[in-house]
Amino acid sequence: MKKISILKPVLVSNQERARANRKFFDRGGSLVINIIASPGAGKTSVIESLIRRLKSDYKILVIEGDIRGSSDSARIKKLRVDAIQINTVTACHLDAFMIARVLPRVKRKYDLILVENVGNLVCPAEFEIGEDFKLAVLSTPEGGDKPAKYPLLFHLARVVVINKCDLLPHVDFNLTRAKKEIRKRNSRALIFEVSAKTGAGFGPFVKFIKLELSKKR
Amino acid sequence: MKKISILKPVLVSNQERARANRKFFDRGGSLVINIIASPGAGKTSVIESLIRRLKSDYKILVIEGDIRGSSDSARIKKLRVDAIQINTVTACHLDAFMIARVLPRVKRKYDLILVENVGNLVCPAEFEIGEDFKLAVLSTPEGGDKPAKYPLLFHLARVVVINKCDLLPHVDFNLTRAKKEIRKRNSRALIFEVSAKTGAGFGPFVKFIKLELSKKR
Repeated sequence: MKKISILKPVLVSNQERARANRKFFDRGGSLVINIIASPGAGKTSVIESLIRRLKSDYKILVIEGDIRGSSDSARIKKLRVDAIQINTVTACHLDAFMIARVLPRVKRKYDLILVENVGNLVCPAEFEIGEDFKLAVLSTPEGGDKPAKYPLLFHLARVVVINKCDLLPHVDFNLTRAKKEIRKRNSRALIFEVSAKTGAGFGPFVKFIKLELSKKR
Repeated sequence: MKKISILKPVLVSNQERARANRKFFDRGGSLVINIIASPGAGKTSVIESLIRRLKSDYKILVIEGDIRGSSDSARIKKLRVDAIQINTVTACHLDAFMIARVLPRVKRKYDLILVENVGNLVCPAEFEIGEDFKLAVLSTPEGGDKPAKYPLLFHLARVVVINKCDLLPHVDFNLTRAKKEIRKRNSRALIFEVSAKTGAGFGPFVKFIKLELSKKR
């Protein structure tokens, strides 16, 4: 079990690097959100929806983490927002060192930096990158048992966005039970119910993000 | 990047252990399928559907891989089929050593051993466990871009089961394009379109599994 025996020192050195990233982001006055979800939960669609509602008032950067390819950063650039693509190649998560390597490309001050992690509910939760907070996206077709099966992410996430609520009539997802499962891991989690497809539910979510942005000014 | 520098030797030692597991399974004449998918793609539901259609004719064992908990193996046991739960704690995938540790609990001969890996499209594809083949489950709400974003799994999977086809009218999933994306990584992949919820599409899939089982006799 080689991987497990080295995990602790790797995480400690990662945490030091995350603190240095944090200082960089603080100097720019940026709010940094680490967005974590399963593949296909709708991370990029949620980011696009936020951008459309915020880009006229705030400078936004998106950092995209993917094993390969740049299809997500291409989607972001179509909205005329800056995007940096990181390809992790074999790694199933972003870590603080990968973020540090792209910081020299962050040339201007951004109000909001949205980091889209690799689609995975496990390791991305373990590696801090210098974020203000973690935001988990849980989509209704995945089922409400995910907070119990992947407890660390839901324990750590300050915000949980339940996405694809437009599919609720067609899937077996008990919203009340899912929220209870989330609160069991994290009694203070803020939960927003949205549909990136229809736009429903983004009002309170955007209001919260604006409140967080105002604290940085 | 400590993790990457040790990845190769870890994989080599894993492969040796996988070969030893393979010999164990061969002695029992078992067909072993390593089932890999995102969280919530419906791996357990697909396994339940297979069990219902096969358990009267074949001896089946399910090995469940989860970070924590035993909710999936509890579901399997309800169908009166043997199940062994592995909790990976921090690891985002099963490896050959975790499988080797539970082999002493495999006391009888099974025709079919279904291994449900941890919900993750990245690392489970990298670690052989001694399987006959990998089976990927891709659910329609995840979107058809997943084969391009997680190419290794779709390159290696002999079988791809497209699940939740009952949701096709409600989600943006182009079946033709998705199959093209799969075939681009793996021209010989067998693709089955199913709905574990309605039972649609299981005929050809079960026929294929029975054919593979007949080769072991």
